[in-house]
Amino acid sequence: MMTRRTFLSASVLLGAAAVSAPMSAQQQPASAAADPKLIEDLVAAYRILARHDVLDGFGHVSMRHDRSANRFIMSRSLAPELVTAGDLIEFDFDGNAVDARGRAPYSERFIHAEIYRARPDVKAVVHAHAPSLIPYGVTTVPLRPVYHMASFIGDGVPVFDIRKTFGMTDMLVSDSAKGRALALALGGKTCVLMRGHGVAVVGPSIPIAAGRSIYLDMNARIQTQAMALGGGKVTYLDPQEAQKMMDAGENRGYERAWELWKAQASRP
Amino acid sequence: MMTRRTFLSASVLLGAAAVSAPMSAQQQPASAAADPKLIEDLVAAYRILARHDVLDGFGHVSMRHDRSANRFIMSRSLAPELVTAGDLIEFDFDGNAVDARGRAPYSERFIHAEIYRARPDVKAVVHAHAPSLIPYGVTTVPLRPVYHMASFIGDGVPVFDIRKTFGMTDMLVSDSAKGRALALALGGKTCVLMRGHGVAVVGPSIPIAAGRSIYLDMNARIQTQAMALGGGKVTYLDPQEAQKMMDAGENRGYERAWELWKAQASRP
Amino acid sequence: MMTRRTFLSASVLLGAAAVSAPMSAQQQPASAAADPKLIEDLVAAYRILARHDVLDGFGHVSMRHDRSANRFIMSRSLAPELVTAGDLIEFDFDGNAVDARGRAPYSERFIHAEIYRARPDVKAVVHAHAPSLIPYGVTTVPLRPVYHMASFIGDGVPVFDIRKTFGMTDMLVSDSAKGRALALALGGKTCVLMRGHGVAVVGPSIPIAAGRSIYLDMNARIQTQAMALGGGKVTYLDPQEAQKMMDAGENRGYERAWELWKAQASRP
Amino acid sequence: MMTRRTFLSASVLLGAAAVSAPMSAQQQPASAAADPKLIEDLVAAYRILARHDVLDGFGHVSMRHDRSANRFIMSRSLAPELVTAGDLIEFDFDGNAVDARGRAPYSERFIHAEIYRARPDVKAVVHAHAPSLIPYGVTTVPLRPVYHMASFIGDGVPVFDIRKTFGMTDMLVSDSAKGRALALALGGKTCVLMRGHGVAVVGPSIPIAAGRSIYLDMNARIQTQAMALGGGKVTYLDPQEAQKMMDAGENRGYERAWELWKAQASRP
Repeated sequence: MMTRRTFLSASVLLGAAAVSAPMSAQQQPASAAADPKLIEDLVAAYRILARHDVLDGFGHVSMRHDRSANRFIMSRSLAPELVTAGDLIEFDFDGNAVDARGRAPYSERFIHAEIYRARPDVKAVVHAHAPSLIPYGVTTVPLRPVYHMASFIGDGVPVFDIRKTFGMTDMLVSDSAKGRALALALGGKTCVLMRGHGVAVVGPSIPIAAGRSIYLDMNARIQTQAMALGGGKVTYLDPQEAQKMMDAGENRGYERAWELWKAQASRP
Repeated sequence: MMTRRTFLSASVLLGAAAVSAPMSAQQQPASAAADPKLIEDLVAAYRILARHDVLDGFGHVSMRHDRSANRFIMSRSLAPELVTAGDLIEFDFDGNAVDARGRAPYSERFIHAEIYRARPDVKAVVHAHAPSLIPYGVTTVPLRPVYHMASFIGDGVPVFDIRKTFGMTDMLVSDSAKGRALALALGGKTCVLMRGHGVAVVGPSIPIAAGRSIYLDMNARIQTQAMALGGGKVTYLDPQEAQKMMDAGENRGYERAWELWKAQASRP
Repeated sequence: MMTRRTFLSASVLLGAAAVSAPMSAQQQPASAAADPKLIEDLVAAYRILARHDVLDGFGHVSMRHDRSANRFIMSRSLAPELVTAGDLIEFDFDGNAVDARGRAPYSERFIHAEIYRARPDVKAVVHAHAPSLIPYGVTTVPLRPVYHMASFIGDGVPVFDIRKTFGMTDMLVSDSAKGRALALALGGKTCVLMRGHGVAVVGPSIPIAAGRSIYLDMNARIQTQAMALGGGKVTYLDPQEAQKMMDAGENRGYERAWELWKAQASRP
Repeated sequence: MMTRRTFLSASVLLGAAAVSAPMSAQQQPASAAADPKLIEDLVAAYRILARHDVLDGFGHVSMRHDRSANRFIMSRSLAPELVTAGDLIEFDFDGNAVDARGRAPYSERFIHAEIYRARPDVKAVVHAHAPSLIPYGVTTVPLRPVYHMASFIGDGVPVFDIRKTFGMTDMLVSDSAKGRALALALGGKTCVLMRGHGVAVVGPSIPIAAGRSIYLDMNARIQTQAMALGGGKVTYLDPQEAQKMMDAGENRGYERAWELWKAQASRP
C-alpha cells in the first residue's frame, strides 16, 4: 500500500496526465482534468470500501466528472484495494473509454453509465457484492432501516432481478440495455439490490455514496440479527423519522467518518 | 495513530492549554486543568472503544470534570479513533462549551450533560451505536446477563424510545429536553438502550464505563447466540448472583483489562 | 513472514534445488524443475488461503507438476502460513515422496494423489476445514449458489461420508483406498464436502482452485444467513445462469482478485 | 509486544531468577527452575489464546511444574496478552504463592490447583470466558463434536453449575472448596463448561491444552451454525470415530499448529 505521500502526489500527477492524454479510439477528447480533491476521494473510496469488506477483489466505485457532466471516472479493471489515481479512466455514458491507453475496463461499467444518465443528481456510484446484502436479494424479506444510520433507506430498497427482463444470463450488467433496466429499478432511490449478485448504491457525493454503502451493510447485519432475535417482529424507523434524519443532513454527510476513513486508507 | 510518546506528551500539554484558555462566548471561565491522568484515560477510552468496535466513526465518551463537578469534558466533533487531548472541550450542563475556541461540538452532548446532572455518582458516560445492541432496542426481548462479566445489568436494562415523548424526530438527543428524558429512562441503572439508535452507558470511572460498554456488547452477542441455540430458554445470572459479583468489585474495576487496553491503544 | 524479495528469490532457488535433488528412497528420479511462476503461485496459495481463514494451522494445497503429469507438488507437513518454496516436495500418485530428503509429508496427501489420477483436467487441489462448510457436511441441507461468485457449484456439491465405505475410522483420508473413494464421490464436480471433516476443492489452475475455495466459503456463510432470514425459502442461481457464468469465464479466472491476493500474501 | 529475541532471553532469565528467589511468606522453598522450553511455551500460550480470542483481558493458563509435581506455575494477575516470563509465579495446591515477591495472584488460581490435585495426568490447564462457549453452559444443548478437530470431546462435556453446590455466589471459583467441586465435575474429561462463566480445559501438555481450547471454541461456533441450519438435526462424530482420532494422536498433538502459533505470538 502506498504511503500518504505517494498517495497524494500520484493524484496530482493524474491531473497533468489526463490533460495531455491523446485522443481515444472513439475520437472523443478527454475532458479537462477533474478536481484533484475529487480524484483523491475517489481513490480513497476504493480503499475504504475494501477495508470495510464492502468490496473484496471485485466491485467498483465511480464519480461523475465534475467538469464534464456526461462523463464519469472509474478505475481500470483492478482489485479495489490496489487502485491508484494512475488507474483511473474516463468514460462516456455508452461505456466507451475516452482515455483507456490500452487499459482494460470493468465489464460492468454500464451499471454506472446508465445510472448517471438517468439520475442527474447522482455524483457517485458504488457496485458491491457485500455478503450481508445478498440474502435480502434472494428472499422476500425487505431491507429496512433498523437504526438512524440507515435513514437513507427510509423509503425502501428495490430489488432488481435480471432474470425477469433478460431471462437466463451470466448475471452481469455488461451492456447498456442491462444497465438501463437496473437504473429503472433503482428509480429515485438511494440503492438497489441485485438478485444473486449484489447492490448498487448512489449518492450526491463520493463520501455519501461510500458512507451509505458502509451503513447499508451494517444495517443488513443488524436487521438479520434483530429479526432472528425478535421472531421477525422488529420496530423499524418510521418513514417520517427517516425523512427527518435525511432533512437534518443524513449523518452530516458522513464528514466525521470520512475524515477517519481517509486517514485509515492512507496508512501503510 | 500517535506513538506512545506523543500520546503522553499531548495530554500534558492539554493541562497547560486549558489553564490559559480565554473566556468562552458564554463568559464562563474554564475550570482549573483536569487531572492529566484522567485526561489520558479519556483519550484512551475513545481509542479503546473504537478498537473494540463499540464506537465506529460516530459516538463519544465523556468524563465529569474532577475539579468542577458541574462540568464535563469530551472531544470536539471528531471520529473517536482520531481524538487526542488537544481535541477535548469543557462543557456545562446546558451543553455550552466553555473553551470551544472555534471547535464544533458533538450535537448529542446533551446525553452526557443531563446524565451528569441527574446522577452525581456518574463520572463517565459512553454513547455508542454498537451493532450487537440495536436488536435489543427494536424488539421486545430484554437484554439480560448471560455471564458474570455482565453482572452490571443484573437489575435490567431500560429502553428509551424517543418517539413516545417527542413523536417524530430525527432520532437525535440534541437538546436538553431530550437529554433529560433519556436520563429519566436511565434512572439509577448502568445503561439505557435507545430504540433505533444505540445506547448510553455510565460508570463511576472511565475504565468502568468503558469496560461496561465492551462487555455489554459482548453479552448481547452471546445472548443472541444462546437464545437461538436454546430456542429462547436460557439460564441467566440470578439477580442475587449479579449483585454479589457487583459487591465483590465488578470485574475488579476492569483494572486488569484496562492496563491491556491502554497498552493496545498506545501502539502505533 | 518473508519480504517480497525473499519470497521471490526462494522460489528461484527451489528450481535449482529440485534439479540437483538426489534420488528418493523409491529410486524414482525427481522431475525436471517445475515452472518457477507456478511454484510462486503455489506458495502464495498457502498463504492466501490462510489469510482468508480457509486454512488455519491445518489443510493443504497442491499443484500437478507442469512437466510431469503423473506427479504433484505440495508442502512438507507444515502449517500453511509458514510454507515457503523450500518446503515443497514432489509426489507420485501412490503418495510416495520423490524428493523428501527427510522431510515429513502430510498424512492426507492421498486426497490430492487420487484426485489427480482420476481427473486429468485438474491442475490444483485444496483440502481445508473451513468452519462455514462443516455444517453442510453434517446436515441434509445442500450447499447451493446464492450468488454469481459461486457459479462453479451450479451443478451441486456432493458429500463424502467416509463412514459409509470404511465404517469407524479416524476420519482421515490417509491411504490410497480412501483417496479413491473421495475422488469417486467428487466425480466431475468442482468440490466435495467431507462429513465431519472438511472439503476438497479442485481447479484447472492454482488461482481458480484457490478462488473457488474462498468463494465456496463465502457462499456458505451467505447461504446460512439467507436460509435463516427467509425461513429456508431462497432463490438460488438457476443452473443455466450458473452455466452461463462459467461459460463467460468463471469470474475471469479470478485474475483480478489473484493479483490482489498475491500482493497481500507477499506483505511483511 | 516483545521481539522474538527479548521473548527468548526473558525466559532464560526466569530460570536464573527462580533459582535465586527468596523464601515465600509460607516458608516453602521455590522448586528448582522449570524447563525453560516449557516456560517459553507457557508464556506463548497466554499470547496465543489471546490472539485467538479464547482469552481477552481475563482468563489464564497454567502448567504443572515439571520438576515438582505438586506445584504449578501461572502468571501474576495480568491480562494474558501482556504476560512475560518475569510475571510467572509458582503455587502449591492450596493456592499459596511460593515466590510471589509482592505480585498479586489471580483469584481463580484454585481452578488450576484442584484440577492438578485431582488429575495427575494433567500437565496444563486453561480457564477462559470464550463467547462461543457460554451458550452451551446456559442452555440444555450439549456441546458435541461436529468435526474431527474436536475429537477430544467425543465422550461429552460436563457442565458445572456453581449454584447447585454453593447457592448464590459471585460466580468465581475463588477458594479450594469451589475448585474441588469444579474438578469433580470435570472428572476424567478434557474440559468442563462453567454455567454463566466460562470453561476449564486440560491437557497432557501446554500445546494440547491450548489446541483443545482453540478447537473447542471453533467447534462451538460450527455446532451453533449447524444446528440452526439443520433445524437441530446434526450428524456428530460417532464416539468410536472420536476415539480412533484420539488413538491416532489427536491432531498429532497440535504440533503443526503450535509451530505456527508460536511464530505468530513472537511477532511484534
